[in-house]
Amino acid sequence: MTPEDRFVEALQRFLPDCAGVWVGPGDDAAVVAPRPGSLAATTDLLVEGIDFLPTEEPERLGRRALAVNLSDLAAVGARPEFFLLSIAFPRQRGDDYALGIVRGAISQAMRFGTCLVGGDLSRAPSVVISVALWGQPAGKPLLRSGARPGDEIWLSGQPGRAAAGLRLAQQVSSGNPSWPSSFSEGASQLLAAYRDPDPRIGLGLWLAAHGTASAAIDVSDGLGMDAGRLARASGVRAVLERDKIPIHPALATFAEIESVDPFEWILSGGDDYELLFTAPPEARPALNEVHPEWEYSVTRVGHIEAGEGAVLRDRTGDREISHLGYDHFEEAR
Amino acid sequence: MTPEDRFVEALQRFLPDCAGVWVGPGDDAAVVAPRPGSLAATTDLLVEGIDFLPTEEPERLGRRALAVNLSDLAAVGARPEFFLLSIAFPRQRGDDYALGIVRGAISQAMRFGTCLVGGDLSRAPSVVISVALWGQPAGKPLLRSGARPGDEIWLSGQPGRAAAGLRLAQQVSSGNPSWPSSFSEGASQLLAAYRDPDPRIGLGLWLAAHGTASAAIDVSDGLGMDAGRLARASGVRAVLERDKIPIHPALATFAEIESVDPFEWILSGGDDYELLFTAPPEARPALNEVHPEWEYSVTRVGHIEAGEGAVLRDRTGDREISHLGYDHFEEAR
Repeated sequence: MTPEDRFVEALQRFLPDCAGVWVGPGDDAAVVAPRPGSLAATTDLLVEGIDFLPTEEPERLGRRALAVNLSDLAAVGARPEFFLLSIAFPRQRGDDYALGIVRGAISQAMRFGTCLVGGDLSRAPSVVISVALWGQPAGKPLLRSGARPGDEIWLSGQPGRAAAGLRLAQQVSSGNPSWPSSFSEGASQLLAAYRDPDPRIGLGLWLAAHGTASAAIDVSDGLGMDAGRLARASGVRAVLERDKIPIHPALATFAEIESVDPFEWILSGGDDYELLFTAPPEARPALNEVHPEWEYSVTRVGHIEAGEGAVLRDRTGDREISHLGYDHFEEAR
Repeated sequence: MTPEDRFVEALQRFLPDCAGVWVGPGDDAAVVAPRPGSLAATTDLLVEGIDFLPTEEPERLGRRALAVNLSDLAAVGARPEFFLLSIAFPRQRGDDYALGIVRGAISQAMRFGTCLVGGDLSRAPSVVISVALWGQPAGKPLLRSGARPGDEIWLSGQPGRAAAGLRLAQQVSSGNPSWPSSFSEGASQLLAAYRDPDPRIGLGLWLAAHGTASAAIDVSDGLGMDAGRLARASGVRAVLERDKIPIHPALATFAEIESVDPFEWILSGGDDYELLFTAPPEARPALNEVHPEWEYSVTRVGHIEAGEGAVLRDRTGDREISHLGYDHFEEAR
């Protein structure tokens, strides 16, 4: 038996039973029985030093790798069903490191009834995690391109927390945390938002199943950039109103501690994995109803106009924000 | 627009039209209409310095990344339909490098009517390519686990060529080729087998559609190791007969030039992407018929016995070979 064969045997010991999986990890390909109908599929790479800090725990990395892919399916309104997981890592990390990533990925996937069906392992000079995830749209898939002038813009949760959490994680990682002890609960909340994002599957499924949203995108690279992408795909202008955007109390406090404008993190931060979507005004009552199964707010934050770009509007005027964001392709952490 | 958005725009200029793709690259997830029924899925990572030489051309890398995944679907007898492609690469390589990989992948995929539907880009200290590929089994999926005592063992093509080709490629890459000019045609054939493997999709589909094979595996890590994997999954012993294994003339010649036993490459080499499969003796006439649409031989090379392991049998006896092979997880090139 090769080390890879032994790894797959170790993995199979904690692999949960999964309906619809005819052939799971260990053969040349997986064979599954998906729900009939169309299929939504996505993939995301996480690269050490670019998408995560080298000090990150493996279980958390696995949960995060799944979460960023789950968020993509949430954005198109699809129910996640199956995933493939590949891990390339240096020998010095040890097999337990990779098994930790697998464990974390499975625990995140199980929250949404999603099954690991296969993957690949390789050596590499630094860690790279690749997930491919697919599932079934709960209705007409939500696209970036359907927003129309007159639509209103809605946002889940409170973005910017992950960017603030990253700054905290960097301080922890460098052994130099700068926040007062009175802020420890807030710090935990921001760190959790960065390290362990919660994909908005429930909201995405509800929007697709009810045909509520005209367009949607997940906020992975900053509210500014992702609002700009939705606007460009739809051929419209997105207007976000500054005083409507919800600011988490811990974000406000940490911004004060760091003497920065919290909107810097909200607009440019990235890694939020909130959903930004548009809907006609008639949808307002349904969206304002409380959905206790969602543990996050859904807030009306602006509207769509004819034109192009994305702006943040306040009493002083409009500020173009579609260039603000975190470019995972270009920048390194 | 971010560099990643610009990359996707450049890509869309050469993306072929594809039936069944409702949403292709550029949104949060792809949406496709697969053929109804079960789904076979696989994924493989290629890592620079482990799975390919840093000097490899990007188009060829893209073709190869698809080929190794196509080979997995061939091994289960599934028709490839859709793929996702992720590329992590250092900035110095330039965007044209990554676009070359995409072009190569698409050209390989088009040979089999397979469509690119999405992917991801990231920076990384060295190149990593990840493909996830789906398709539909042409019949009952071929598994590693179905071989029974009395079955015969069959092999496509002539393995070992890729391992010899790798040795040639390493000599080219180091600027120190050692073969005589009279061997240049043979060298081209071996180099092509390594650099541009041809997945045995036609054979895999035929085997699944006709219910011919009792078990199958693709020979990616060496005939010894992969015969051992099939035997272990089936709970049987695989007996390969040395004098039945086809040896390509160029392989024989290069082995003589290098003064090595060609079986070293055949058993331990890896990267062949031939199919090794078992079938009951009644299938012999159908398998011996010429299938001109397959541009490779299909040869009976042994049989299955009760027991365990995989052996190479010749007049002097049996040699255990299931530990011989290239472990992509453990070794580095």
